[in-house]
Amino acid sequence: MFENKNNRTELNSLGEFGLINHIAQTVKIKNPETIKGIGDDAAVINSGNHHTVVTTDLLVEGIHFDLTYCPLKHLGYKSVVVNISDVYAMNAQPKQITISLALSNRFSLEAIEEFYEGVAMACNRYGVDLIGGDTTSSNSGLLISVTAIGIANADDLVYRNGANDTDLICVTGDLGAAYMGLQLLKREKEVFVANPNMQPEFNGYDYLLERQLKPEAQKQVIEALHDAKIKPTAMMDISDGLASELHHICKQSNVGCRIYEDKLPIDVKTHNLAEEFDFNPTTAALNGGEDYELLFTVPVTTFEVIKNIKDVHIIGHITDAVSGLYLNTTSNQSFEIKAQGWDALK
Amino acid sequence: MFENKNNRTELNSLGEFGLINHIAQTVKIKNPETIKGIGDDAAVINSGNHHTVVTTDLLVEGIHFDLTYCPLKHLGYKSVVVNISDVYAMNAQPKQITISLALSNRFSLEAIEEFYEGVAMACNRYGVDLIGGDTTSSNSGLLISVTAIGIANADDLVYRNGANDTDLICVTGDLGAAYMGLQLLKREKEVFVANPNMQPEFNGYDYLLERQLKPEAQKQVIEALHDAKIKPTAMMDISDGLASELHHICKQSNVGCRIYEDKLPIDVKTHNLAEEFDFNPTTAALNGGEDYELLFTVPVTTFEVIKNIKDVHIIGHITDAVSGLYLNTTSNQSFEIKAQGWDALK
Repeated sequence: MFENKNNRTELNSLGEFGLINHIAQTVKIKNPETIKGIGDDAAVINSGNHHTVVTTDLLVEGIHFDLTYCPLKHLGYKSVVVNISDVYAMNAQPKQITISLALSNRFSLEAIEEFYEGVAMACNRYGVDLIGGDTTSSNSGLLISVTAIGIANADDLVYRNGANDTDLICVTGDLGAAYMGLQLLKREKEVFVANPNMQPEFNGYDYLLERQLKPEAQKQVIEALHDAKIKPTAMMDISDGLASELHHICKQSNVGCRIYEDKLPIDVKTHNLAEEFDFNPTTAALNGGEDYELLFTVPVTTFEVIKNIKDVHIIGHITDAVSGLYLNTTSNQSFEIKAQGWDALK
Repeated sequence: MFENKNNRTELNSLGEFGLINHIAQTVKIKNPETIKGIGDDAAVINSGNHHTVVTTDLLVEGIHFDLTYCPLKHLGYKSVVVNISDVYAMNAQPKQITISLALSNRFSLEAIEEFYEGVAMACNRYGVDLIGGDTTSSNSGLLISVTAIGIANADDLVYRNGANDTDLICVTGDLGAAYMGLQLLKREKEVFVANPNMQPEFNGYDYLLERQLKPEAQKQVIEALHDAKIKPTAMMDISDGLASELHHICKQSNVGCRIYEDKLPIDVKTHNLAEEFDFNPTTAALNGGEDYELLFTVPVTTFEVIKNIKDVHIIGHITDAVSGLYLNTTSNQSFEIKAQGWDALK
């Protein structure tokens, strides 16, 4: 009782990925059914006829969301989407989710109903069943824990470690919008706190707000790739920012990469707001995070097909590992890509 | 932004089960693979050759555990056990778990290592693989979210709704010990807070402390029932107290029950400490909770076999629904069983 340990290593000196690696090293897989444990978008279990994928995420008030500007219905929707995005990133189909809530007594039944309305909307949109969860008190704020379960044929699964030299690097949709949406919400919150009679100024920025508050998972791109009979060599979803995710794929695939600034898909509204904030839109695209787009690599031989798939943008190519990770800028300079991804433990 | 709803229903006016029922009513199952959603110890998914069961639990500091007297290694062990206990309660075999942590910066790497040592011990003891999770910051305290996954043949699964009139009611092990262990820890904490130089007085109560701090799941009873070719008609694990769990089984099976005080398995140490605290041991057994024993019903025709299975105690029998839920006391009185189970939302 009341014991102390003498050594103390601060968690933020490791960061989230350092901690995950540390935990993963202590884990030994014992069951032959467990195909993939810690270290990808989702774990993989052999279920006989097919494989089952499992992924889980925590969303913590004050860390991942601010209820001042995040409506509970949107939060319910987003809680589902960020998890099934990980299922699609395995090239699998999401089927079920569980949602657990720890909530303080400031939440009423009506507030929880609003949250579950958003959950139900996302479940309907993506054909997913809510099958369970746990609900309990917390002494402070709201915490949401979601686990998503999906299925795939064993041969269809795509991991992070399959990228090869010369593969094309693709991303879906556009990048940096959710991050700029968050900056806008933060600015308007400051205005509101200073003067509660001021109405927030969101005119013309609906797209950026929606990208932040109600993101979507890339179901249609997974289907388009399937229809085109293209299986990516490596894939993951972009939650911590493109730069951070490129590091994951390159590290796990033991390769390098070169991407091109002028190829990065950035919406004009992201550009405009970044200009207003005196912020580099390329930085928003590289390090902003919460895009929930897909990052994937395909053999260069698929070029003629992949370039015509809607919402898919080729942003560069894989290189050998010793060439490192580099961005070619519009001014034709070459910068090493640093993983400055958003780290929930820093 | 900053919207308000006018109606406000306090969550504690519903309680945890009221809220779960409320949520379950809004959920429509869409996928044919989803066999069972909200409302049992675990959800059930048809995986082709077998069924997959999924269960999840939140453990919140200050609500479910107190780190003043709960060592992190024990907490890691218990976090796994309380979840796989739900898997056994479906008559399934646990195979994988995910563990997510939200933790404040007062936790060091060494503290987290201690927690995962306990997790690894439980995983080894029960043959379960840790396959994933999420780790993030919290503004206050520690929150643990665990999801456990198991498998079973479709025919082997046992739900809460299959109990029939005249079935025998059985429980495993003994009841009320974890609750009395908690009372002891709370008393010694008060002594410690009043005078930090006092050493806690735990002599002779190791068993009660272990039941509270390091519970076990009832793997061996599930195996013994399987070997004896007995499939319970209904089953669940006892986490909120026997009385509360009897209500779940009777409600879902549309039956009543009669149990006998002199048949309730209560360890002599539970008796002794209850006496010291001037507390009725039967109340500890009925409403204490956190026993993680199994409550199940079997056809009366299995009596000759079931009475010889180790750790299994017959405590009464199922009646028709109109007969209600009753306890026959040692003084031969009959009391209605109230579900005063521990409610994390009250």
